[in-house]
Amino acid sequence: MEAICLKSLGIKNDLRLAARNFNPGGTIIPLGGVEIGGKEKVIIAGPCAVESREQLLETAGEVKKAGAKILRGGAFKPRSSPYSFQGLGIDGLKILQETGSETGLLTVTEVIDTRDVELVSRYVDILQLGSRSMQNFQLLLEVGKLDKPVLLKRGISSTIEEWLLAAEYIMSAGNHKVILCERGIRTFEPLTRNTLDLNAIPLIKKLSHLPVFVDPSHGTGIRDLVPSMGKAALVAGADGLMVEVHGEPSCALSDGHQSLLPEEFAEFMEQLERFQDIFMM
Amino acid sequence: MEAICLKSLGIKNDLRLAARNFNPGGTIIPLGGVEIGGKEKVIIAGPCAVESREQLLETAGEVKKAGAKILRGGAFKPRSSPYSFQGLGIDGLKILQETGSETGLLTVTEVIDTRDVELVSRYVDILQLGSRSMQNFQLLLEVGKLDKPVLLKRGISSTIEEWLLAAEYIMSAGNHKVILCERGIRTFEPLTRNTLDLNAIPLIKKLSHLPVFVDPSHGTGIRDLVPSMGKAALVAGADGLMVEVHGEPSCALSDGHQSLLPEEFAEFMEQLERFQDIFMM
Amino acid sequence: MEAICLKSLGIKNDLRLAARNFNPGGTIIPLGGVEIGGKEKVIIAGPCAVESREQLLETAGEVKKAGAKILRGGAFKPRSSPYSFQGLGIDGLKILQETGSETGLLTVTEVIDTRDVELVSRYVDILQLGSRSMQNFQLLLEVGKLDKPVLLKRGISSTIEEWLLAAEYIMSAGNHKVILCERGIRTFEPLTRNTLDLNAIPLIKKLSHLPVFVDPSHGTGIRDLVPSMGKAALVAGADGLMVEVHGEPSCALSDGHQSLLPEEFAEFMEQLERFQDIFMM
Amino acid sequence: MEAICLKSLGIKNDLRLAARNFNPGGTIIPLGGVEIGGKEKVIIAGPCAVESREQLLETAGEVKKAGAKILRGGAFKPRSSPYSFQGLGIDGLKILQETGSETGLLTVTEVIDTRDVELVSRYVDILQLGSRSMQNFQLLLEVGKLDKPVLLKRGISSTIEEWLLAAEYIMSAGNHKVILCERGIRTFEPLTRNTLDLNAIPLIKKLSHLPVFVDPSHGTGIRDLVPSMGKAALVAGADGLMVEVHGEPSCALSDGHQSLLPEEFAEFMEQLERFQDIFMM
Repeated sequence: MEAICLKSLGIKNDLRLAARNFNPGGTIIPLGGVEIGGKEKVIIAGPCAVESREQLLETAGEVKKAGAKILRGGAFKPRSSPYSFQGLGIDGLKILQETGSETGLLTVTEVIDTRDVELVSRYVDILQLGSRSMQNFQLLLEVGKLDKPVLLKRGISSTIEEWLLAAEYIMSAGNHKVILCERGIRTFEPLTRNTLDLNAIPLIKKLSHLPVFVDPSHGTGIRDLVPSMGKAALVAGADGLMVEVHGEPSCALSDGHQSLLPEEFAEFMEQLERFQDIFMM
Repeated sequence: MEAICLKSLGIKNDLRLAARNFNPGGTIIPLGGVEIGGKEKVIIAGPCAVESREQLLETAGEVKKAGAKILRGGAFKPRSSPYSFQGLGIDGLKILQETGSETGLLTVTEVIDTRDVELVSRYVDILQLGSRSMQNFQLLLEVGKLDKPVLLKRGISSTIEEWLLAAEYIMSAGNHKVILCERGIRTFEPLTRNTLDLNAIPLIKKLSHLPVFVDPSHGTGIRDLVPSMGKAALVAGADGLMVEVHGEPSCALSDGHQSLLPEEFAEFMEQLERFQDIFMM
Repeated sequence: MEAICLKSLGIKNDLRLAARNFNPGGTIIPLGGVEIGGKEKVIIAGPCAVESREQLLETAGEVKKAGAKILRGGAFKPRSSPYSFQGLGIDGLKILQETGSETGLLTVTEVIDTRDVELVSRYVDILQLGSRSMQNFQLLLEVGKLDKPVLLKRGISSTIEEWLLAAEYIMSAGNHKVILCERGIRTFEPLTRNTLDLNAIPLIKKLSHLPVFVDPSHGTGIRDLVPSMGKAALVAGADGLMVEVHGEPSCALSDGHQSLLPEEFAEFMEQLERFQDIFMM
Repeated sequence: MEAICLKSLGIKNDLRLAARNFNPGGTIIPLGGVEIGGKEKVIIAGPCAVESREQLLETAGEVKKAGAKILRGGAFKPRSSPYSFQGLGIDGLKILQETGSETGLLTVTEVIDTRDVELVSRYVDILQLGSRSMQNFQLLLEVGKLDKPVLLKRGISSTIEEWLLAAEYIMSAGNHKVILCERGIRTFEPLTRNTLDLNAIPLIKKLSHLPVFVDPSHGTGIRDLVPSMGKAALVAGADGLMVEVHGEPSCALSDGHQSLLPEEFAEFMEQLERFQDIFMM
């Protein structure tokens, strides 16, 4: 992968540790037998939020069987309204950890408060910073002190430059295990929840050495579009996907309309299997 | 392909002829041995603007050899500044027609004035309405009287609903041969010229029966991103691509920075060849 | 008014005739006793569309009495859907002309087709190019041949630079009587129809010598916001306003929800009267 | 002020404490002799960041003399790059407190970390949540426990609904002293740093009882536009302004290009004085 001159593209800020030149070969993060950023595409799947032990265990079993390597599930949910379901908190963390152990899946969950970083890091394999936290600089610095991978979602209207600078914050604090995750940006288009910016994928591969994931669930907000956009993201060069899966989407406490059913997820994973050769091109 | 209930998605206007339900099986436009919207992906390629007979003939020969079926080349160029190159006009149309004949390529060019529709239609196989003309309703009605395919680019900040209604204008005037073409939307992101909205592809396949193309050259504005995004567009469900190719991008009278070199285009087409099975999935 | 260095602000294109330096004192367009761009603020008012002789005459009488100098009324209406009311066409032009004569109001109406420019120019005092036509370059050149003022609305997602270049098109064809009109831009905010970009007013006063109007009706899409935003626009430096007024908004064939009632308009004009000293500051 | 039916405007979420109906007469926050949200417009002024005791004291003296009631100055600066000046931290807080005492100005500063809320609240009269923190829900809840006013800036691409829900978070935790502050939204327009959304002012006055301020410095990013847009904001209904003032803008450690010189600020304040009658209309 040839690096692009940052200045020629209009990058104004000082990108150092996150710049392609810092690690021209590309960063691979080994984690429990999985190589994030390696040759094989890595799929993260699971419900938007941890709702109960039964719900998570059942979904985990199904996504594991279908080929997912990492289980997602929110314990601390950032919600626009204070009156919406806010997640199970520490109970959610415990359920996630146990479910990971039982199924052999790695786990990822979001942390939203600097005071919780140490706590959350004890329960999961990967910490997620959500789009609303991408420029919570104190939180970036706090996860920067850990020795665990951080999945850094792009802010809903953050430029690619701001996003890479957020990664730079984490890395400047010592933690180089950063996974970028495109999840759609806010535009004028009302039919889709967000506009998935796949341009960002090949562009970041030029600008940075970090692995890049894509979340087609938030990036579209429409279940029917998830498989197509997931495949497109991988073909565009993404190293993996984060997909919402829920056994009863219509009863989900959040984001049901964009969650795949377990059987839809399984079918999607089969399609990806047949894509593997293409992805290697 | 199952149609989605338009109202459930938030479509407010009256979509009739362009709605999926009008032709649930999907529209195929046969044209000189090519089937637009059919099983095989169709590639349109060529320079942004017709600059000279030699330039076009050379480029046409190369894109033909690489597998393109349709030659693009602007004769009437809409430019932000009145002092920029405005195209060769009728001379450009003649060069395009002759080059099409000599190489056996179909041709497409943009029309920007209601008074030119009849003229342009005499020289080319497909008329293009550019993004700035998507809501030039008189122009839509005028091309709606023709019996030639119209490639309708999405306005730079048009919603999907407005875009489909623009197709409805053309169809309501009698011409059902409409090809939609996503070419990127205007967002806050400054690094790319536009944000290519691939979400629109699978969504429109639900909403409408019309063929959908993607222009990754305008959609990214960066040569290096064109092949990745072209492949992603096809995997997302696009029926074809429109790609800018120029023998000497640095000397192009317009859009050189986003044009592939002929050899890059040839390599890209070879990759697509190996994708054909995937596209059929 | 001191001109700003265009390059220092990031203006890339060649702005000549529309640039502040071309006429540092600012352009005043005298028209039937009114000075557009002069010391006094000029108010354009009337219904979105000409619907009938009675409707227009009644509304015209009321806006005239309240202090408006120019009557607006659409005869050719660009509508997103082909099935929406498209305007009365030439009959609308005639009604507008007669109503202008009877009431002593100047008139403005939109032209949307190059083929209609000559026709429309025979009936009205000012030709309007709507937001969808701002980059209809052939139309710009066509009205550029007239000796009548052109009110050039900003495209719904046009940059200020593109807008000034559109004015440059008209001026480069010979017609220097261009009035710019900000009418709101498309953003992510769903509660208002558009986001009225008042930043553009003082900025354009630095960049260009042309008069600038503001349309708070389209700029907000909500009747209750029109008076506040109209006043704000004038305080920000606008030379005048374009306001929709309709006797029975709930029955209007278009844009009723953003039209003031005649009595609301009269009250608004009284407030403006008391603002006159401020505007002169 | 008549409240608007929230649902009729498209507000989907449950707005309770922040809704106009909760306090139809409008909320006034008394603070050290100043009434925020009262009849008189309140001006907050000062440098972007506290840089030194001398710098702040000098600027404070000048803005006080010109009529400002509240002194701004950042101690914890959220910056896109980890390598930019991050503020003086606790030393900045001390300087701000002392300067406030010496000059008799109230003080406001930004808090960016839940762990700092208690600390910051000991030093200043008003806590500011910046645009990047508007959806830092834990921080909202934490300042919600205080008995001090919170100035809540709108997120750079937050909808008005999300903004009001952020206020609802603070209020739901017990603190009803919330001041909203519009500071410009991110759009496609590159010439201005942000697009100041003044539509939001009269709209929020319908939707909510909370005081609303406007920051024309961030809202434009261009010094020359600040006075015009400040006046426009007040005419549109804002209860006050937040304006950046710096003695040597070209040497400012942040945001110099949008800071007024003290003499420009004084002239601006004199103009506002002459506006007072208008504001009362």
